[in-house]
This record gives sequence, C-alpha cells and structure tokens, in this order.
Amino acid sequence: MYLVSLERLEDKIKTFAKFGDDYHGGITRYALSKEDELARDEMVKRMRKIGCEIYSDDLANLYAVKKGRGQNKKKIVMASHLDSVKNGGNYDGVLGVLCALEVLETIAEQNIEHEHDIVAMVWTNEEGSLYPPAMMSSAIISYPYLPLKFRESYEEENLLNSKSVLDHQTTFEDALKQFKYRGERKNRLNQQDYLAMFELHIEQGPVLEANQKEIGVVDKVIGMCNYRIKILGQSDHAGTTPMSFRKDALFAMSKVLIYLHQKLDELDKDLVYTTGEIILHPNVHTVIPDYVEFSLDARHQDDHVIDQVKAIVEHLPKVFEKCEVTSTLAWHRDTVYFNSRLINYVLEATKELNYPYQFINSGAGHDAQMVSYMLPTTMIFVPSKNGHSHCDEEFTPIKQCYQGANVLLNAVLKCDKNFEDK
Amino acid sequence: MYLVSLERLEDKIKTFAKFGDDYHGGITRYALSKEDELARDEMVKRMRKIGCEIYSDDLANLYAVKKGRGQNKKKIVMASHLDSVKNGGNYDGVLGVLCALEVLETIAEQNIEHEHDIVAMVWTNEEGSLYPPAMMSSAIISYPYLPLKFRESYEEENLLNSKSVLDHQTTFEDALKQFKYRGERKNRLNQQDYLAMFELHIEQGPVLEANQKEIGVVDKVIGMCNYRIKILGQSDHAGTTPMSFRKDALFAMSKVLIYLHQKLDELDKDLVYTTGEIILHPNVHTVIPDYVEFSLDARHQDDHVIDQVKAIVEHLPKVFEKCEVTSTLAWHRDTVYFNSRLINYVLEATKELNYPYQFINSGAGHDAQMVSYMLPTTMIFVPSKNGHSHCDEEFTPIKQCYQGANVLLNAVLKCDKNFEDK
Repeated sequence: MYLVSLERLEDKIKTFAKFGDDYHGGITRYALSKEDELARDEMVKRMRKIGCEIYSDDLANLYAVKKGRGQNKKKIVMASHLDSVKNGGNYDGVLGVLCALEVLETIAEQNIEHEHDIVAMVWTNEEGSLYPPAMMSSAIISYPYLPLKFRESYEEENLLNSKSVLDHQTTFEDALKQFKYRGERKNRLNQQDYLAMFELHIEQGPVLEANQKEIGVVDKVIGMCNYRIKILGQSDHAGTTPMSFRKDALFAMSKVLIYLHQKLDELDKDLVYTTGEIILHPNVHTVIPDYVEFSLDARHQDDHVIDQVKAIVEHLPKVFEKCEVTSTLAWHRDTVYFNSRLINYVLEATKELNYPYQFINSGAGHDAQMVSYMLPTTMIFVPSKNGHSHCDEEFTPIKQCYQGANVLLNAVLKCDKNFEDK
Repeated sequence: MYLVSLERLEDKIKTFAKFGDDYHGGITRYALSKEDELARDEMVKRMRKIGCEIYSDDLANLYAVKKGRGQNKKKIVMASHLDSVKNGGNYDGVLGVLCALEVLETIAEQNIEHEHDIVAMVWTNEEGSLYPPAMMSSAIISYPYLPLKFRESYEEENLLNSKSVLDHQTTFEDALKQFKYRGERKNRLNQQDYLAMFELHIEQGPVLEANQKEIGVVDKVIGMCNYRIKILGQSDHAGTTPMSFRKDALFAMSKVLIYLHQKLDELDKDLVYTTGEIILHPNVHTVIPDYVEFSLDARHQDDHVIDQVKAIVEHLPKVFEKCEVTSTLAWHRDTVYFNSRLINYVLEATKELNYPYQFINSGAGHDAQMVSYMLPTTMIFVPSKNGHSHCDEEFTPIKQCYQGANVLLNAVLKCDKNFEDK
C-alpha cells in the first residue's frame, strides 16, 4: 500500500481556503469568479511543478495529466469541483480536487509506476449557485449518454444561456468567454481517451459519523425530484384591507408547507425533502404579498417513493386561503448505480488500509452521477463533522481527509493495474 | 361653491402615469429616482405657467406657492407624495399632488380671491420603498414636535444614512445630493410661516366603496406596531440530512405564522395585520434554510388592542421546530387625531357639494400624521376600486378624483376665510 503526505494535503486545504474566504469559517467561491481563477492558478502551479501536462476544455474544465508508462492507453481521471455555494464550506468539492492533486504529488515523489495516464480534473460549476443548474458541465459533456427523459433539462444551448442569479443578465457563456481557463472543445472528457473516473467527496450528512465509519464506499446516487410551487394571491395595502378581504400568498404558503410536511412524512422514513428557496412579491412590509414561489427538493433511493412524492405535489389542492396553488416539475433523476468493478477497487483499498468503512448512498448530486452514464465511475466519501455541509461549520478532520486520499490513491492504482481498456 | 376642471385633472393623471410606467397598469417611481425628477419637472412647468413661486428644502420637498392678497399671512398647504412602492399604482400619493395642482390652476383660471398664500407641496420619500422608513421627510421636519417615545425611530442622522434596499450602499443622503430638487434647509415647512395642511389621498381600502360613499372625511390615523421576527435554524445539505436531524427555519416560520394568525384572530375584528416582507438565508434550493426574518405590521384605532398584539408577539414561544424565535419592535405609533376645525371645513364643503360621505379612519400612515404634531392638519379620502392599492389594479374613477379635488378646493377656501393665524 502507498500512503500520501498528511502535511502536504493539510497545507493544500489551508491554502485553498483563502480563495473566497468569508472570514467567518467558510467560503464563497462561485464558478468562473476571480476566486475560482485563483484556486485554479494554485492548482496549475503545483501540477506544473511535478511535470504534469495541463489543458482545459471549452467549458473551462481543467485537466492535469501525469503521464503513464503505457502507450496509447486510456486515461484514469480523479475529479471534483472547486466552486462553492454562497457561504459554503472548505471541503465540499475542493477536497476531492486536493486529494487528486495529492495523489499525483505522491506518485511523483515516490516514483510510483503506472501504465495509464492519471489525471486530476476540475469540473466547472458543479454547484450551479450563480448559473443554475448544478452539475452543468458534466451534464453537457455526458449529454449524449443521458437517458432520453432527462435530456430536455440539459440542452447545451439552454445551459450556456443560464443567467446569473445576481444580475439576471450575464450568461454562463458570457462568463466563460471572460474566464482565463476556457480551452478547446476537443479537450472534453470522452469515451475514446478516458478509462474511468473516481470522485472523492465529503459525505455532507451524518451517517458515517453516527456509525463511526471512516470511509464510505459509495454504490449509488439516489433519485430525486425538484418542483417549483407557485401561489397567487392579491396585493393590497397592509393598513386598510380588512382580514376577511385578503388573499395573502405568504400565509397560504405556510399552509401549503405544513400540508406537504404532513403528507410527505407519511411516506418512507428515508425520504428527505427541502424547501430551500423562496421568491416573495412584492416583499414590502406594508403590502400584502400577492405571489410566492418556492422550491421543493425530494430524494430517495427507491424511485417508487419519488413517484409517491410526485403524486402528492401534483395533486396539491388548487386553493389554499383563497390563493391559487400550482406546481411545476423543474427536474428529476432516477437512482444512478456506480460501476461495480470500480466500487470493488475502493473496497479492497479500504480493507487493505484497515479503515472502518460502510457502503453508502449519495443523497446529493455529484458530477460523478452524470459521468457514470458515459464512463465507468465511482465515488469515495469521507465523514462530515455533525453532518453539516453548505455552511461555515462544514468540516472533516485532516486525519479523515488523509485516509480518503490514501483510499483514492490505492484504488486508482488498482484500476491502473487491473481495469482493461476496451 | 367652486368647481375644478375634470378634463384638466384627467390629463394630469394620464401624464404623470408615464413617469415610471411599468407597462402592466402600474408604476415604479422610487423617491429621488429619474422618474421622480421627471414628475417634478412636469409639476414645476405647470405651476410656473400659473405664476407660482417654486422652491424646495434640503430634503427635496417641493413647494409651489400661489400668492394671496394678504400681507404677512401664514400659508395653507395641500400636500402629498409622488413616489411609489415597487410595482405600485397611479393614485397612491400622486393623486393628492395632482388635486393640489388642480386647485391652484382653478384658483388661477377663475381668479378666485384668497388672503393666504396657498401651496401645492410634494413630500419626498413617503413610501420609503428604496430608503426606509416610510414618511421619512415629514418625520424629520416634524421631529421636534413628535412624542418623545417615537423620536428614537426618527433621528435625522440615522434617516439620512438609510441605505438603498437595492444596492445596500447608497444612502438617502447620497441620493439627495445627486437630486435636482434639493434646496435649502430654511425652506422647510414650519410653524412660523404655515397655517395648516390638507392631504387628499385614496382610501387604499374597500370601506367607502362598500358603503357607497364618495368622500371619506378622515378624522384620525389609527395606531400601529411593526415587528421584525427572526428565526434561527441550521443550514445543511438538502440531499443528505435526515429529516429528524434538521432545524429548518422556513418550516418553523410557517408554524410561527399560523400561531400568530390563530392568536391575533382572537382579538378585535377590526385589527389588521400583515407579514409582507421576508428575508431567507441562504435561499438556495439545495440547502436547508438557517435563517428567516419577517415583518409583522398590525394596526387598530384602539391603542389597547395594539398593546394586546405586542403582548402576543413579545411572548411568542422561544422555540418552533427546534429553531430559535425572537422578535424586535421596529416602530409603533399611537392613534393620531386630526384638527377638528379643519375636519369641519372638509365636512361642510362635502355637504355643500352634496357628495355622499362618511367619517373614516386612515389605516395607512401618511405624511399628514407626522405633520399633525406640528400644524393643524387633516385628510380627505376618495374611494379605491375593489379596495386595491400598492398594485397595478389600484384605481379611482375620474369622477371621484374630480369630486375629491372639489372638496379640497372648497375646504381650503373655507380655511383661508375662517381659520385665524395665531
């Protein structure tokens, strides 16, 4: 077994935490921002130092390639993302990239032999925080391999036109054109040149910690659906409209939320659902709200349970508190299963390193889920302290980061040795 | 009795509706905006044409003075505002200004004799939509006369520093300095030079229409309190945090809203209350919300009922759905009674014009309420179709606008004739 350097990995975590530092524990590092550029500069600097070839594709996905001994072999990729949500943490995404860099630095330092080229890769705009949706560039690149029913959510032209949620004007493509790391379309990840993809990520949930496991051997990403629920009332002056005359869209929303919780809580106990985003109009303290829109995100490994959620949302009563209620399915995905041979390399590496582990689902979406339609793919999870993620408190102790990087290194080397090019 | 010109008034309503036209029925004309400037330009043009003296004060309140025959007499003011809320209507505020202009144009055209100078006046930033709070400049000017307990809400220095709700940076004072109509502090409305103030306004409620009355003789502005209610949860990833681990601030808010509705609905049936504004953090569909703040505005003529509201809000349970709930009183006012002699001029004018009328409270706040602490003041209401206001549908038929202007004209002339300077 090979081992990475804990100190070098820790130095990278500390260094990258500066690029977008919020100064209260977390970071805001939107895709294609100045902070994103600085983080990539740091990556390129480190990868050049160990002799990697660097290139990027037209979506600014960035690749650092450590050459293998073999001729005309396909490449093995370790990928994750450097962008964050607003006020996100210092582990989601970035840890997967830093562990990939650490694996290449270890291979270089210890002169570990490998046949295939091994690549550390950054996916652009995994979070979709500024330019929705999430997993944008992995969806674009994997598009030809996606199930037909999902494709309409991921038309390249529509995604490139996604507008900034801040200025409602700048498109993702506008930002791409300004961005230092935009490269050529021919450099995109593809089936001809690449063999397999591994993604290490924090769990973003409390399961590993609760079960006192150090490594999550991820075997699937669970299915989900995402709705926009819209409520139409009537705006009037706060001081002059008797209560009985009102159609208050925000009060109606409260009733809708409680209705949804009651109905959804009757379904399977593993179902999770979230109402995280709200738009209120006109959002003025002296005016009765006439419009509310909110998001509903529901996830479960069993597609049948997701179908039950859809039935509840699509058969919401049409009127709450005299306001009209409608729902629109924004997107959905089925449960995605990872490649069993790659899962097995992760499992073997974990066992040989003697780390406590368990099989686990991913509840969150990841680029690996998109890529899995195109290439053999799998994921490795490390624990999240108290299960927190997408917030300042997001944290994974350095020892667990180190262990994750060791599993990644050895799983990739097993893949290099055993996984045949087709 | 004198009568204004319906056609001329209608022309003004149509003309002023262009300045900030939303192209779906209403307007957005923030205080100190380009649209506000255009509306004032139009007013100045019209008032110059009839020989008015024009000046403004340091808060950009604008005065057009039609000279009376008397020497050293105090001035009588007719005032309202030209600014609107976001997506407001074409009658709130602006109608009071246009009726004041129409009164002066009628006096000029018909050569109506009057002793006192009569003034059409615009109050800057009544709505407080861009720079909160509402009634900002009338509060600043009336400050020395306000009850002590209200003063801390209206310290001039704080109000001038009020930041734009759009860019969170530009202050009201910054915008004032850039604004064409900023004048001198010595021009402020004051007790030495001014005798009384009238404000015509739309009712912004359904009462006059429901009772088939054309004129509301306003005798008071009812008391109110305004709270910010804050809910603190924990943000975590939407896909990975089991329901039982969550502290969802938005779900907690739903429970708080329903609790408040249940408790407040048990109080007097004339109580109105509104939760019009909400701040949600981080407001991302994949993150459980960790913070919600919302406004509660409650109004009733009986201060005892407002005290009951305060008791309910200030004794809210501290925890809803595992989230912490706190409340802060943002501001409040007691019921304000208008000057009985001015009310009587309005009443007599209405009776002589033979318009159906009723006494009515104002539920909304108006600059008149601030000024009433400094000068004899009263208001005239005209009906609002279906009670709608602060929205595209805000509407008062031209006949009712015309009748309101006639009442204003004749009430002001009665004041001119009968109200003694002290």
